[in-house]
Amino acid sequence: MSKSKPPVVRLHEMQPGQTGDFFVLLAERVRGARRDGKPYYTCRFRDAQRSAAFMVWSDGGWFEVCETEWREGAFYKVRGRYDEHPTYGPQIDVINIRPVTDDDRQAGFDPLEFVERTRYDVEAMFTELWKLAESQIGDVPLRRLVLTLLDRSSKALKTRPASTKHFYPFAGGLLEHTLSVTHTCLHLVDKYAGRYPDLMPPLNRDLVLAGAILHDIGRTRELDDAVASPQATVEGRFLGHVLLARDLVRDTARELGDVDPELVQLLEHIILAHLERPEWGSPRLPLIPECLIVHHADDLDAKMEMYARCLSRDQEESPFTARDPVLGRQLYKGRRK
Amino acid sequence: MSKSKPPVVRLHEMQPGQTGDFFVLLAERVRGARRDGKPYYTCRFRDAQRSAAFMVWSDGGWFEVCETEWREGAFYKVRGRYDEHPTYGPQIDVINIRPVTDDDRQAGFDPLEFVERTRYDVEAMFTELWKLAESQIGDVPLRRLVLTLLDRSSKALKTRPASTKHFYPFAGGLLEHTLSVTHTCLHLVDKYAGRYPDLMPPLNRDLVLAGAILHDIGRTRELDDAVASPQATVEGRFLGHVLLARDLVRDTARELGDVDPELVQLLEHIILAHLERPEWGSPRLPLIPECLIVHHADDLDAKMEMYARCLSRDQEESPFTARDPVLGRQLYKGRRK
Amino acid sequence: MSKSKPPVVRLHEMQPGQTGDFFVLLAERVRGARRDGKPYYTCRFRDAQRSAAFMVWSDGGWFEVCETEWREGAFYKVRGRYDEHPTYGPQIDVINIRPVTDDDRQAGFDPLEFVERTRYDVEAMFTELWKLAESQIGDVPLRRLVLTLLDRSSKALKTRPASTKHFYPFAGGLLEHTLSVTHTCLHLVDKYAGRYPDLMPPLNRDLVLAGAILHDIGRTRELDDAVASPQATVEGRFLGHVLLARDLVRDTARELGDVDPELVQLLEHIILAHLERPEWGSPRLPLIPECLIVHHADDLDAKMEMYARCLSRDQEESPFTARDPVLGRQLYKGRRK
Amino acid sequence: MSKSKPPVVRLHEMQPGQTGDFFVLLAERVRGARRDGKPYYTCRFRDAQRSAAFMVWSDGGWFEVCETEWREGAFYKVRGRYDEHPTYGPQIDVINIRPVTDDDRQAGFDPLEFVERTRYDVEAMFTELWKLAESQIGDVPLRRLVLTLLDRSSKALKTRPASTKHFYPFAGGLLEHTLSVTHTCLHLVDKYAGRYPDLMPPLNRDLVLAGAILHDIGRTRELDDAVASPQATVEGRFLGHVLLARDLVRDTARELGDVDPELVQLLEHIILAHLERPEWGSPRLPLIPECLIVHHADDLDAKMEMYARCLSRDQEESPFTARDPVLGRQLYKGRRK
Amino acid sequence: MSKSKPPVVRLHEMQPGQTGDFFVLLAERVRGARRDGKPYYTCRFRDAQRSAAFMVWSDGGWFEVCETEWREGAFYKVRGRYDEHPTYGPQIDVINIRPVTDDDRQAGFDPLEFVERTRYDVEAMFTELWKLAESQIGDVPLRRLVLTLLDRSSKALKTRPASTKHFYPFAGGLLEHTLSVTHTCLHLVDKYAGRYPDLMPPLNRDLVLAGAILHDIGRTRELDDAVASPQATVEGRFLGHVLLARDLVRDTARELGDVDPELVQLLEHIILAHLERPEWGSPRLPLIPECLIVHHADDLDAKMEMYARCLSRDQEESPFTARDPVLGRQLYKGRRK
Amino acid sequence: MSKSKPPVVRLHEMQPGQTGDFFVLLAERVRGARRDGKPYYTCRFRDAQRSAAFMVWSDGGWFEVCETEWREGAFYKVRGRYDEHPTYGPQIDVINIRPVTDDDRQAGFDPLEFVERTRYDVEAMFTELWKLAESQIGDVPLRRLVLTLLDRSSKALKTRPASTKHFYPFAGGLLEHTLSVTHTCLHLVDKYAGRYPDLMPPLNRDLVLAGAILHDIGRTRELDDAVASPQATVEGRFLGHVLLARDLVRDTARELGDVDPELVQLLEHIILAHLERPEWGSPRLPLIPECLIVHHADDLDAKMEMYARCLSRDQEESPFTARDPVLGRQLYKGRRK
Repeated sequence: MSKSKPPVVRLHEMQPGQTGDFFVLLAERVRGARRDGKPYYTCRFRDAQRSAAFMVWSDGGWFEVCETEWREGAFYKVRGRYDEHPTYGPQIDVINIRPVTDDDRQAGFDPLEFVERTRYDVEAMFTELWKLAESQIGDVPLRRLVLTLLDRSSKALKTRPASTKHFYPFAGGLLEHTLSVTHTCLHLVDKYAGRYPDLMPPLNRDLVLAGAILHDIGRTRELDDAVASPQATVEGRFLGHVLLARDLVRDTARELGDVDPELVQLLEHIILAHLERPEWGSPRLPLIPECLIVHHADDLDAKMEMYARCLSRDQEESPFTARDPVLGRQLYKGRRK
Repeated sequence: MSKSKPPVVRLHEMQPGQTGDFFVLLAERVRGARRDGKPYYTCRFRDAQRSAAFMVWSDGGWFEVCETEWREGAFYKVRGRYDEHPTYGPQIDVINIRPVTDDDRQAGFDPLEFVERTRYDVEAMFTELWKLAESQIGDVPLRRLVLTLLDRSSKALKTRPASTKHFYPFAGGLLEHTLSVTHTCLHLVDKYAGRYPDLMPPLNRDLVLAGAILHDIGRTRELDDAVASPQATVEGRFLGHVLLARDLVRDTARELGDVDPELVQLLEHIILAHLERPEWGSPRLPLIPECLIVHHADDLDAKMEMYARCLSRDQEESPFTARDPVLGRQLYKGRRK
Repeated sequence: MSKSKPPVVRLHEMQPGQTGDFFVLLAERVRGARRDGKPYYTCRFRDAQRSAAFMVWSDGGWFEVCETEWREGAFYKVRGRYDEHPTYGPQIDVINIRPVTDDDRQAGFDPLEFVERTRYDVEAMFTELWKLAESQIGDVPLRRLVLTLLDRSSKALKTRPASTKHFYPFAGGLLEHTLSVTHTCLHLVDKYAGRYPDLMPPLNRDLVLAGAILHDIGRTRELDDAVASPQATVEGRFLGHVLLARDLVRDTARELGDVDPELVQLLEHIILAHLERPEWGSPRLPLIPECLIVHHADDLDAKMEMYARCLSRDQEESPFTARDPVLGRQLYKGRRK
Repeated sequence: MSKSKPPVVRLHEMQPGQTGDFFVLLAERVRGARRDGKPYYTCRFRDAQRSAAFMVWSDGGWFEVCETEWREGAFYKVRGRYDEHPTYGPQIDVINIRPVTDDDRQAGFDPLEFVERTRYDVEAMFTELWKLAESQIGDVPLRRLVLTLLDRSSKALKTRPASTKHFYPFAGGLLEHTLSVTHTCLHLVDKYAGRYPDLMPPLNRDLVLAGAILHDIGRTRELDDAVASPQATVEGRFLGHVLLARDLVRDTARELGDVDPELVQLLEHIILAHLERPEWGSPRLPLIPECLIVHHADDLDAKMEMYARCLSRDQEESPFTARDPVLGRQLYKGRRK
Repeated sequence: MSKSKPPVVRLHEMQPGQTGDFFVLLAERVRGARRDGKPYYTCRFRDAQRSAAFMVWSDGGWFEVCETEWREGAFYKVRGRYDEHPTYGPQIDVINIRPVTDDDRQAGFDPLEFVERTRYDVEAMFTELWKLAESQIGDVPLRRLVLTLLDRSSKALKTRPASTKHFYPFAGGLLEHTLSVTHTCLHLVDKYAGRYPDLMPPLNRDLVLAGAILHDIGRTRELDDAVASPQATVEGRFLGHVLLARDLVRDTARELGDVDPELVQLLEHIILAHLERPEWGSPRLPLIPECLIVHHADDLDAKMEMYARCLSRDQEESPFTARDPVLGRQLYKGRRK
Repeated sequence: MSKSKPPVVRLHEMQPGQTGDFFVLLAERVRGARRDGKPYYTCRFRDAQRSAAFMVWSDGGWFEVCETEWREGAFYKVRGRYDEHPTYGPQIDVINIRPVTDDDRQAGFDPLEFVERTRYDVEAMFTELWKLAESQIGDVPLRRLVLTLLDRSSKALKTRPASTKHFYPFAGGLLEHTLSVTHTCLHLVDKYAGRYPDLMPPLNRDLVLAGAILHDIGRTRELDDAVASPQATVEGRFLGHVLLARDLVRDTARELGDVDPELVQLLEHIILAHLERPEWGSPRLPLIPECLIVHHADDLDAKMEMYARCLSRDQEESPFTARDPVLGRQLYKGRRK
């Protein structure tokens, strides 16, 4: 890069006409062709709050590297000039560009800043979930099993979406969902234990807690660790998150060696059956009431997030949202003032 | 009856050989025929804790009245002698018998003592539900709507089952279920209002409460008031409890006249959609998140009761219960000590 | 407008090069961008028989008003010159334009002339339906109920489609469908009353007639009164036309006060159950034979219209039509000469 | 038989104590065993209006022939004494018995008198159907095709049920159903031809008539000719009535040789598709509007008969019938006086 | 037992009036009550070819031990007298009786002789299956995995049914089915490898073989080892045979340590997906062609056995069998001479 | 054409700049419009291995004939110059063009060379299938029936796809599929005849062979004989290949006159039922075990081809293919080196 370095800035804070160095995600790279046959690329770079176009013409300097090296979903450090076209909107004129390096990462570059992510602090959520497991699971070996799995999955929990498209589809969504489900389960198991004090066998509070915390732990292995648009892993496709979670429990319990075998069996059962029906993804039906609590807490939490996201994003003027493709319906929002 | 009246007793407290006056439900009346062609009736009388047989032979004194007048499900005052046959078990020898009268009812006869009923005190539950409505629903006209409906349905809520066969199938079950669902909804709406503070429109706590309290209010009209084995009413068959509940809300809101029309519309919607899908009994799909909360609280509560009842009654020696015909599966109970 | 007014004409009667004043529907308004970045709008105006384009360039005089004020589905009075481009077809050059006013309407402007509508005279059809109700429904209060509802819905019946996409999707289609179903029902109930003269209860001719006339009356409230592409109303989405129709009957019967309650109950039932199954839109199953007649007459009439429309519009050369997206199949039309 | 012959009588006209000769159907023959191990048969003979029992003890004279020769569903000429037991009801004491012979048939014995059958005169119905075909089908070769098939199937049409259990399950029901469907179709095709006068191709009235008359002609081969409880034939099981009817049309058209091939193809299509969906029994979907008319006329007529039969037979005291096992619901009949 | 021991015989070889010692299965033990109220048991003992009754009256010597100790499904050594009652058929008069002991087993008592079992020699079948694995699986570690699992499951394979009711429901049926499926798979994989020689990746013959041999290995753990009417185990109910088989493969592969991980993953996949759809019992869909071969070979083999068994057992006189409750249809057998 | 004829070449062998005469299929003809309103056509000609574009501008010489005469799916003889544009790829400049004539066909033009077709020699496959029928079907009249049908369908078998989109969708695919299924069936029937030697009736090897060879013979009439993208025929739409095949068997058997009627009936049954369920296309369920063999051999063969084709064509870099639209899933292919 040139001697007098421009300042390091954030794309979304730049003023029209300003030149600076900034990190961006290459969100889109589409090939087109002009009427005279010359190819070009329309590239779209963005950070979390702004997206700007860069046209790469075949006779400009960036064509070859764009064609052969740039990848959608990758991060770049750009030196460029920002402008706003009256019709085409935000534009970048690239002066220099290179992929992000490990040095950048050590210097504080964080890919999560460039994608949609949970509104909550992931460290605080993880600590909260950890403390719930620590304080609420009475059976010592079972508690250790849960904590071991939390510990080993902590990075993925903090960065993965709960699902790629349906619910909590953003970084950290998996942790946010898990924590919410666990809180709901804690309330419900205490409620129902109170209502059925003589049940034999009694409702197992430890099992419900462990089931809530671990019900989606398999999702940490179902998707890879790409920050922008993670993909299914090989084992994710072959097994799915339900079997992956159950295997994690089974293997870890074996490794630890001291968890009561019936507890392990029932915890595996809660995980296998928490989607309730084969056509919804569970190979076995719920055979214990603890499973019902995890199922309903999970299902409600996922749907609440979908409804809330649909309502939040909708721009329609009518009292109903546009049709949500996942929900298959138009939600009511009333005539907001 | 004879001059020296025998004492008034309870069937389930009688000793073999004892004679007394007692109230019973005629639970079963089956015609049979002996090998020589003579018809007879096997009758089974019971109170809440004991059931005893009475054979009515064609040449005994009770045959004609049994054949022409006695009805299954009706209550009788019996003067009789109680015995226990080594093979056939508890027997009654009827000395005198007549249907229960209004005088009996005024003198304290209570049909509910003869059928299965909720473990909880119905007056206490009703008061609790009332107070929840009173204290938790902020919108004054909506609160008055809910209280008016509670007031008018109080007798039925306290005596009806939630359903005849599936869940809470016992007297007072409807109130027990409604109260439990309301508590769950109260917790969940506060939880989710906290998690989505910026939702537009915000989660409507009043609506969730009102929906929870009234979601099954139509069941007070779906079944008649027969204490033993209530039957569907004509409007119950033509409309079903979902439409009946929605009509009660609509009519009462009109009568009161001051409830915000959008609130009435959304409360009707929660009731219509709380079973979530047409094939599960809801003519419309949920279009607001409040409906999700009522649906999941309701569904979980019904299933928990079914699981708990299945586990409580099971006598199988194996670690699994017998197949529950409603659930369509065998639950796990472990090897109880 | 200018002093020497051009003549008032119809768009579809104009000659190339002719200038005139005419009413049009703005059927399409799509934003585009030229290669140099300048935006433009492609507008399409039409009356019932001709559609003509008007390009609104960003540097022409109409751009701003087009961008901010014109709405698809609205009607305008245009002063313009008509031409036919060899490649792009019919074109308008707008000289002046303003939205249609109430004065226009009073002066005879009729929006229905600009959209697809029933082949039949709506006044004549309405009179025929009215007379059927008047002459064929014997029970006086029931007849009055039907006539009251017809009277109050007359405007909507005459202008609404029966459905927006599936069957009779054109103005007045709702009335055309209702009349046709009523005729069929009249024939069928007489036929089956003759075949089952001893049926107890006998087939109720009045009920069948009333059910036929009112089975889709809820559709008058399900869609709004936009002439071009009507939209679902709020109550339409929350309740659907089946419940809306049943409510109209219930409310009007209460208001009138003299209809036999059992008749009202059965009429509501016919409406609720006339789609026969929950997955087809009826919350309850048919419990009386009268309902079968209305269901089959309705279903057949809707399908006949769909088949006839598919056959009428098809332009394929093969002996089968193109695949009809609603019917999901290709109809046979033979090798027409 | 003995010299002084008793009079020939009808079982249902006999007086207790009377002896006579009469024809009966052996409706039931069940083996039992007494406590001492001796086997016996409970036989039940009946004519159309009365059923009477005959106990065949192992030490009586009829045991061996009952065990080895008598068949349920067969007809017998019996000389016997009729009695009415106070408990067991009508009894026969058999003096002599032999299977019905061809001589009996020639002497006027008619098996149809012993089973449930249509309320209408089968000869009159057949004549009416014949005349409809003759007068209403304009295309001469097509008309001849229909008449040929009617002629060849006349005996079966007059004696078979339309189906063994579901609708018109009685002798002659097939003809009664066919005639009713044909009348309905005649009305509907004229109605819709009038409503769609410009349809291309126009509604083919001849095809609708022929389709109505022949839609169930395959049922004449699906069941055998046993008067009491007919059984499925081999070809009936392998092909079903839909394919059997279509084959009859195809074969007969080939034999006659002069029917327009497109008409034959379309008539076959109406028959194949008249049940509308694969899961309802039609291998192909309706591709012409004529098929819709036959489908709806057929479906409505079958259901009307099921509803009427359910209502006619019901003995319940409540305003609803007992649950009809075929319809899967309880119909409403009101509180009959 | 008495001094002069009667000979040891087989029940099905005894002559009426003969007394002997023999082993039997208690196939049925049903409590009844006489008219005078005295209880009794009807017991039915059998060996593979004969079943004989023993009435245990309340005043006979065996009542108490029958009531408190005898269990259906258990084996006994009986000293008794055999007779044939003209009405009630084969009878035993028990002189002495005791449960079978380990000494009996060592002395040659084999429970399998008393239940329905495979027509083939289980040792020969096992050897054949072993040799197929040994000779046909080329990959050494994979072969060792399969052989290890065969070795450990050999006893269960030889004695269990393939399923309790649906297909191969007899002792050794599991092995017979597995061997048959393996042979079919061997043929099919060679056939399709020949037809698609260039497929990338090529069809993996080893995988198909291993999948065929192990696809139902989980059934060795799904049912317990009761010879007569085996019951589902706890893990059988919680996991089902599909997951049990996959776990066996996974665990054994880990234990052995040298199988290629991708091979293990694909072998697990074949097992998980061999039932093809969630609603048929597979939690994942087939993603490799090898799985198709195992699925079709398995499905065909199970159905062929069901058809063959239905045809073999049928006693109907008609050209069709009685309705098979599992197949839900009547098979054609023709008019056998 | 001009005097000095250019050489006759193949499109896919031409060098840039070369001029020649060659046969092509017009694979695509799409109308477009330039910004100035002038229409043009983008045409795409191809032979089996190369596709090249030809732009037809409105002011060029070929516009009118292109607009009025050229048809997609037709073959043309072209004299033209071949070029390769750096951006737009292969181009043709048409000098002369005319439709292919019968003379061309006689001179060796073969349309099959221009479409995807089976990898195998169709003559060799047909001979092999013929010989299988000749040598393996023991019953002489049945064998003659099969050979007659093969003979009459030989041309279509050799050129049609098995289906247009799902499996074997290429010329000759129908024969390739039929031969493969027949081989599998031959193996399976011998296998199962060996395993069930005592089955009554025994497995009929002739029937299985005939069923395998003829199960899809109806497809020769379901599609027309267009080489490129064949269309459904009228009888194909009305009857479908299952009924068409069964009719071919029925008619030919009648014509030949000597085939055992029960064999014909069972062969028709195998064809009608070989898709196993109504929702999969079979109007009747399999009632004989022979049908199971044909069904499974057919289903497996179709699916193997779909999997193999999906794997062969996939270009994705990941270990899974792109989602196959027919299979509805992504297959695993591993990380190919």
